[in-house]
Formats: sequence, C-alpha cells, structure tokens
Amino acid sequence: MRAEVVAVGTELVLGDVVDTNSAWIGRRLAEAGIDSHFQTKVGDNVERIEAALRVALGRSDAVIVCGGLGPTPDDVTREALARVMDVDLVRDEEVLDRIAERFERRGRPMPASNERQAEVPKGAIVIEQRRGTAPGLVCPLGDRVVYAVPGVPHEMTEMVERAVVPDLEQRGGGGAVIVSRVLRTWGEDESALAEQLAPRIEALDQAPNPTLAFLASGMDGIKVRITAKAPTMADARAVLDAEEAAVRAILGQRVFGVDDETIESVVGTLLGDAGLTLGLAESMTGGLIASRCSEVPGSSGWFRGGVVSYASEVKFDLLDVPEGSVVSATAAEAMAAGARRVLESDVGLSVTGVAGPETQEGVPVGTVFVGVALGDEVAAVLLRFSGDRTSIRRLASSAALDLLRHRLLDRPG
Amino acid sequence: MRAEVVAVGTELVLGDVVDTNSAWIGRRLAEAGIDSHFQTKVGDNVERIEAALRVALGRSDAVIVCGGLGPTPDDVTREALARVMDVDLVRDEEVLDRIAERFERRGRPMPASNERQAEVPKGAIVIEQRRGTAPGLVCPLGDRVVYAVPGVPHEMTEMVERAVVPDLEQRGGGGAVIVSRVLRTWGEDESALAEQLAPRIEALDQAPNPTLAFLASGMDGIKVRITAKAPTMADARAVLDAEEAAVRAILGQRVFGVDDETIESVVGTLLGDAGLTLGLAESMTGGLIASRCSEVPGSSGWFRGGVVSYASEVKFDLLDVPEGSVVSATAAEAMAAGARRVLESDVGLSVTGVAGPETQEGVPVGTVFVGVALGDEVAAVLLRFSGDRTSIRRLASSAALDLLRHRLLDRPG
Repeated sequence: MRAEVVAVGTELVLGDVVDTNSAWIGRRLAEAGIDSHFQTKVGDNVERIEAALRVALGRSDAVIVCGGLGPTPDDVTREALARVMDVDLVRDEEVLDRIAERFERRGRPMPASNERQAEVPKGAIVIEQRRGTAPGLVCPLGDRVVYAVPGVPHEMTEMVERAVVPDLEQRGGGGAVIVSRVLRTWGEDESALAEQLAPRIEALDQAPNPTLAFLASGMDGIKVRITAKAPTMADARAVLDAEEAAVRAILGQRVFGVDDETIESVVGTLLGDAGLTLGLAESMTGGLIASRCSEVPGSSGWFRGGVVSYASEVKFDLLDVPEGSVVSATAAEAMAAGARRVLESDVGLSVTGVAGPETQEGVPVGTVFVGVALGDEVAAVLLRFSGDRTSIRRLASSAALDLLRHRLLDRPG
Repeated sequence: MRAEVVAVGTELVLGDVVDTNSAWIGRRLAEAGIDSHFQTKVGDNVERIEAALRVALGRSDAVIVCGGLGPTPDDVTREALARVMDVDLVRDEEVLDRIAERFERRGRPMPASNERQAEVPKGAIVIEQRRGTAPGLVCPLGDRVVYAVPGVPHEMTEMVERAVVPDLEQRGGGGAVIVSRVLRTWGEDESALAEQLAPRIEALDQAPNPTLAFLASGMDGIKVRITAKAPTMADARAVLDAEEAAVRAILGQRVFGVDDETIESVVGTLLGDAGLTLGLAESMTGGLIASRCSEVPGSSGWFRGGVVSYASEVKFDLLDVPEGSVVSATAAEAMAAGARRVLESDVGLSVTGVAGPETQEGVPVGTVFVGVALGDEVAAVLLRFSGDRTSIRRLASSAALDLLRHRLLDRPG
C-alpha cells in the first residue's frame, strides 16, 4: 500500500505559508506502516489540481488531497476530483443540512457561498465534518482511492485520524510499521561521521532494514536517523534498539541525545543529577546560551542565570576580567570564574570570541574561547568556526554547552 | 517561464523535518515574476528522484532540485540527474581541489566520502559553493534546465540568489515584475488590523493591484504584506510606496519596520541615534532579549549587556531587588534600575513573569511585568499573554522591546 499527499493552496506554492500539513500526514502514514514516497504542492487551480492528482494516482494506490474544500470561489478541489473521477458534482442534502445547522447553532445565517461545500462528486462517500464546515470525501477510482480533507490543520488532523488512516489500514491489510529514531551528535561533521559509520552502512546495504541517514542541523549538530520497518511496533523498536547500540559503540560520547533531547537539556539533566548549578558569562553569544538553558522546562532547578558581558567594561567591572585582550583564554577563564562568583553557582561557563563581520583586536572572525570553572579547575579551550555572524554565534553556543557536557561526563565519581 | 521545485530528503516525506526550503524558493520565484505551479517532495531514492524530475520537466521549463548533494551514500541527486540527462558522472578536478582546500583551511584531512561531491553529470555546469562543500549544478536539457542546490538552508538561499534566479530571469526574458513589501506591526491582533484596514481592503478589491495580506508571525508580530505587479521594478515600487503610505496613515506607530527590520534592530537604531546605551535584566525571558539585541550587526555601539537573573537570589544579590515577590511591578522596576547600575548603561529594560507551565507564587501563567529605566523615570507595565512556555517567553521578549521602542519615540526632544 502506497499513499501520497497533494497539498492544495496558492499560498503554499508562493511560499507565504509553509506547508506543515504534508509533514504531519507523512509522519502519520509512516507510523501506520504505509509507504509514502512523494508529496506535491499545487495552487488553487482546477486544471493543475487535476494534473497533480493524475500524476499521484499513476504511482500510488491512495492519494490524500488536503485543502481547497472551503466555501470561496478559489476552493476548487471538489471540481478537480469530479474531473478525475469523470462524474458530475451533485448536491448532498444531508451535508447541506449539517452545514446549515452549524450556522444556526452559532446564531448566524448561512452565506450562500457555503452551499458549494455540499457539492459532492457522484460516487464519492462523505466524511462527516466535526470541527469545521467542510466535509471530507472518499473518492474510489477502481482499486485506487483519493481522500479529500480540509486544509485547516486541526480539522485535517482530526479527519485523517478518524477516517483516513483506519480506511487505509483496512485496505492495506495489516502492513508493516515504519519507525525512526534520531541519534543526535556533536563534534564531527557529516562526512567524518559517515566514514566512521561506514562499516554499519555497508552491512545495512546488504539487508536494508534498518536504514541510516545523516542530517546536518546547524547548532543542533548532525542527526543520525535510524529507520526500521517491521510487522509490529515492538519488532520495529527491537530493530532500532539493536542499531542504536551498534552506532553508539562506534560514536561513543559524540552521541549527546536521542530524538527531542537537546545539548542544553542533556547538560541540565547531568547538572541536576550531580546536584550542581550553572552560571554563565557570555560575550559573543550574547545571551543565546542563557536563552537555550532557560527554555528547558524545569531549568530553575539547575540554572542560576547569566551575565551577558557584551561591552568590555562589563567584563572588567562586573566579572573581574583583567585589563587586556578580552578575546583570550585568560579572559574566558576569568569570565567563567566571575560568573560562578557573581551568580553564586557551582559551575561557571563562559564564551568570548569574534562573531564578525569585522575582526576584533586583530583576532580573526570565528575565533572562540570557551571557559569552564568546575570544582578546583578553571580552564579555557580555543575553538574555530566558519560561517556568517549568526552561524558562528549558534555554533559557539552549542560547542560551549557540549564542552561542559564532556567535562561533566568525565568528572571523577 | 515556468519553474518548479523538487525537494529531496526522506526526512521531508516522513515528516521528521518540515520543508521550509520550497516555501522560500516559491516566494523568491514569485518576487522575480517567474510562474511556479507545483512543488514536489521526494525521498532519498535515485529512481524516485528521477521520476519526480521527469514529471516536473514535463510541465515546467525549469526545475530547482534542492538537497541530496551531500557526501554520504544516501545523497543521490547527482546520480538521478545523470540518469535524467542520460550521461555519466565524471569527476571535476577543480571542484575536488576546492573541497580539499576547504578542509585544509580547517586543518583537517578530507574524508574520502567528500570525493563524491566532486562528481558531476557530464555536460552540467558547476555553481561554485561558497558556504558549504556541496557545489550546485546547472543541467541543461534541450530548452529546459534543472538547477541542483544544497538542502542546507543558508547554502541553498545564497546559491539561489547568486546563480539560479539571475539565470532564470535571463532565460525568461522581461515578463512582469511581482514585488512584495512587508510592513511589520506589533500591538494588535490580525482581526483588529484587518478591521482597521477594511477601507483599504475594500478599495483594493475594486482594482486588485496591489493586494494586501496579513500574516501572523508570533514574536515577529503581524506582517502586512503589500504585493504589486507591474511591467518594471520602478513601476512596482511606485505602487508599493503609495500603498505603504496609505497603510501607515491608518496604523501609525504600530508599524515598527519594513521587510527585514526587527523590533530589536529598530530599537538599536533609535538608541544609537540618541547616543544611548542599553542594559537588560531578564528573568522569564532568560537571555532571549539579550540574544536578539546582540544578533543585530553593530549592536556593540548601543548594547552594553544583560543580567539573566533566573534564580531569585541573583535578583536580590546582584540587582538589589527588594525581598518579596519577584513577579511584581516593584521587582521589574528594581531590575530595570539594577541593570542600568550594574551594566553602567543609560537605559535599563527588565522582564519578570511566569512563563509556565506552573504558576509561580500564586501568579497565573502568562503574567509579565516589563520595567523601563529611562532618564529620571523608572516604571513598570503589566502585560498578559496566552500560549505555551515558548510562546509566552517569545511574545514577552517582543513586547518588552516594543514598549522600549514607544518610550524612545515618545521621548521629549
């Protein structure tokens, strides 16, 4: 059973709205074990929607078309479906009654334009609308099928869950489950990871289940996605567990988390478990690390706060950084120690460097010093990044948090 | 000239990642006056990418394929292009040299896997890579063309701007220009703005050029987009100028900026022009405002820094907030004054409140106090927001910056 998605809306093709519906449907189909290889976006134009549906039906058993079921003249998915089915649109009185009732309950007269929503391609089965005025449609085409659902996200998700996925599962007849797990890494680039994991990739090439894929995600590091297909969810999880273990055996501590875990949430957990609190001193990252830490739910248990010492005088006067270069190991160490003292925390983490676009004190753009004050040790590390100002700031924030993660993992006891 | 987009990546079809690249390219094509009717997403599979490219080439003059140019074995866009062109992949030594140089500059050996990125379908023209290791490709197919660009957003946007759009414009030969301008507002919701602008919307309904559209954008406020279509760029700009003046006459100071301006960049300009510096004290926003301010290029001219006083003790000990409720007007005022003193700035801005998910000191989630210390006045304002933790933090950061913007605009002299 193969299904694909056609998302309808000129605003999607013009890029005024990002199409999140297709992504949601894609994930839902994968969870249900239904293969889904293509997704198409098309504007509000009856010929083009018809063309997109014909292409989709030529390569998939089922198509979910999403959007274009509203009451306004630019909503033409119904017309396109009638063309593909080669039938007329007929008015469904029951649907019309339900739309009229809905307006009555809200104490408003039904605009004439809403009558269009009761028009149904002959031979299509109506999916009752529970959240909006637009009913869904199941349109059989021989052994294939098109489901039409509204484009409003909460109407769409409800209808796909209630009517589309169960119908697809029944048609598919107990298919397999496809599940992914993402191992999140920091410290190596994509090609270095691929090289280290080459033995795994070669092994999997022989029997392509599970599969491994890499995804470079900027300040979120490189993601290694494991995807497994199996008859049941339990079987799929067992495949994921085995492959995760194999990947971790190779990558070790470079894997910082799984799925939705972030470097900051992992650092928070390590700090919380150790009963330690964190104070920050940020210069070039300008509050980005503080913002990331405070975003973690429950961070008040371990995050004391930070000093954003953007101006040099703030470093000197508030953090007791010695006069001299503020982009140096000495400055980073003093900032980490200063943060710990001023914020009364157990651990101090600092970042100073040059985000660009101009060099500073003759130091090139991308130069970053990260300081860590932990226990009796106060030390700084020199890092280098390339990219624009925004990228350098973001990469530096992740690198600093990851350095702290390693220090916490390597702590004796 | 018709162009369409094919976005490559299994993570896109599975819904693990929302495809924002296609939306960006769609918007860019519209701005360039290039028709774009379809967008397709396809997984990392050479047969399916080939199939998607063939469908796209069957209905459009140009195709932009985005992603699948990386160094790992699942990156197979190059192979799919060679199949569509019916040619072999050949190694481009110049591309290889450039990739090798890139690694050399970073002091790392080039992994063998990166050699794949130097393979080019015979007859394709290489688009030099400036931000990553993946070069782009221009693949001519008779009177049609496929452009291949990387999937990493900042690499993609740079390459599309520099090489793809100019080439498309040249091929398309003088059509109409479609240009948009975004007026950015803060302080009213979408329906209130629509109501105030009803007279403009009605006037434009008679002659639909330009058009007005609203886009709610969270912490970036509500955007009012004016779109004009005209034979030349100068004509289109004149239409935009006239409509911008009409909208500003109605919305006044609620318009904080145009296009890429942000509340923080506008605040920075106001501060810079007045010769004032800013210090922050953030509790619930946890460094988000500092991060936004320091992201503005040139912010070192007006941004002194901030104190992220996440723990109450930091408020008491460092900022001299009086003991008692830390979610109060008194605390916000003391924080603003404390920030100004500790950071030696001219202006102090503070935020304290409850981001949730739990209430704090019996204060409901979404309660926010913003304090401003400017000249002789130190004052706090109570605001309320709804939403989840992340939304409330973001909205509070924008509201605080916007409050400061109004104070600076209303300053005597």
